[in-house]
Amino acid sequence: MAERVAGPEIERLIQLLARLPGLGPRSARRAALHLIRKREELLGPLADALQVAREKIVVCSTCGNIDTSDPCNLCRDARRDSSTLVVVETVADLWALERAGATRGKYHVLGGVLSPLDGVGPKDLNLEKLTTRVREDGVREVILAVNATVDGQTTAHYIVDLLAPLEVKVTRLAHGVPVGGELDYLDEGTLSAALRQRTAV
Amino acid sequence: MAERVAGPEIERLIQLLARLPGLGPRSARRAALHLIRKREELLGPLADALQVAREKIVVCSTCGNIDTSDPCNLCRDARRDSSTLVVVETVADLWALERAGATRGKYHVLGGVLSPLDGVGPKDLNLEKLTTRVREDGVREVILAVNATVDGQTTAHYIVDLLAPLEVKVTRLAHGVPVGGELDYLDEGTLSAALRQRTAV
Repeated sequence: MAERVAGPEIERLIQLLARLPGLGPRSARRAALHLIRKREELLGPLADALQVAREKIVVCSTCGNIDTSDPCNLCRDARRDSSTLVVVETVADLWALERAGATRGKYHVLGGVLSPLDGVGPKDLNLEKLTTRVREDGVREVILAVNATVDGQTTAHYIVDLLAPLEVKVTRLAHGVPVGGELDYLDEGTLSAALRQRTAV
Repeated sequence: MAERVAGPEIERLIQLLARLPGLGPRSARRAALHLIRKREELLGPLADALQVAREKIVVCSTCGNIDTSDPCNLCRDARRDSSTLVVVETVADLWALERAGATRGKYHVLGGVLSPLDGVGPKDLNLEKLTTRVREDGVREVILAVNATVDGQTTAHYIVDLLAPLEVKVTRLAHGVPVGGELDYLDEGTLSAALRQRTAV
């Protein structure tokens, strides 16, 4: 029924919008109407921006980041510390660390985590390039900034084993109380870790 | 800080996506990454669909619907009953009624509701065309399918007065219990209306 409510062009736009994460069929309809109402300010620019993204965006062959150049801006940036490599699961995680301004090191994007259930093995991740970079680029420390999930930690262990022969320092993010977090709402695992890894004041 | 995390092209895409209803800055970033990951299946087609929408979609000069032709498909459809005119606030409401398959009449989209606080007066709505259609197109019934909000009801009253000299039958949607709704959760206004407008079984 919904197929013939609007014309096929509008229906196609709605269906494509509905495939974006965070938008369902209903919000995709609202988004389509919003776009059509704001043709000059939003629809046109968005069409152009997508066209630019389609043509220009590439995956950095060094670190796995996405950018309009290869190597990406972060890899080319001479002010960044090449001796520290921050390993993340996804580009979204890289962006999160960059927003926090948390490190001046360089990144390495795995493109996922080991997940036997989903059929993701070591060969599906950007791991070969990681050992090459550690071996050849004078890396002194690899910081494993993977998620504190089971798959993330499995991947971290795998990388620790993988890098063991290269005698590079491997670290991981601290577990602890989130800034602004209330102890009463935290799980026991986090509380225990925060207590174990307590720091002097 | 967020401006320089990704390149300017990606940041621009994220900023435009964030202006869609239902997407905030965070989900816009996720959507942008999703689009870039699915370049062939999603990003490209969406860019094309937006381009088509930008070039082809017009507002129907008869009813105010949006379509790729003027008059729109619904206005041109000879199987629809021209003697019944369903007045809605927005194209989204028209789509909702069409999805329900609730009427075989034709539509008239007001493009909003009277709202003195927002500076929306009768001249801002598609009202002149409504009286012309009622006067000239053999309309026998005008169904006011406006929202049951204060502004919607104000607009309905205004249209009743506007059409009074034309001696056309004007009706409005019934108030009552939503199908599948539980009485315990309904407000008193709806319950009273449902009781007043009870129907024989």
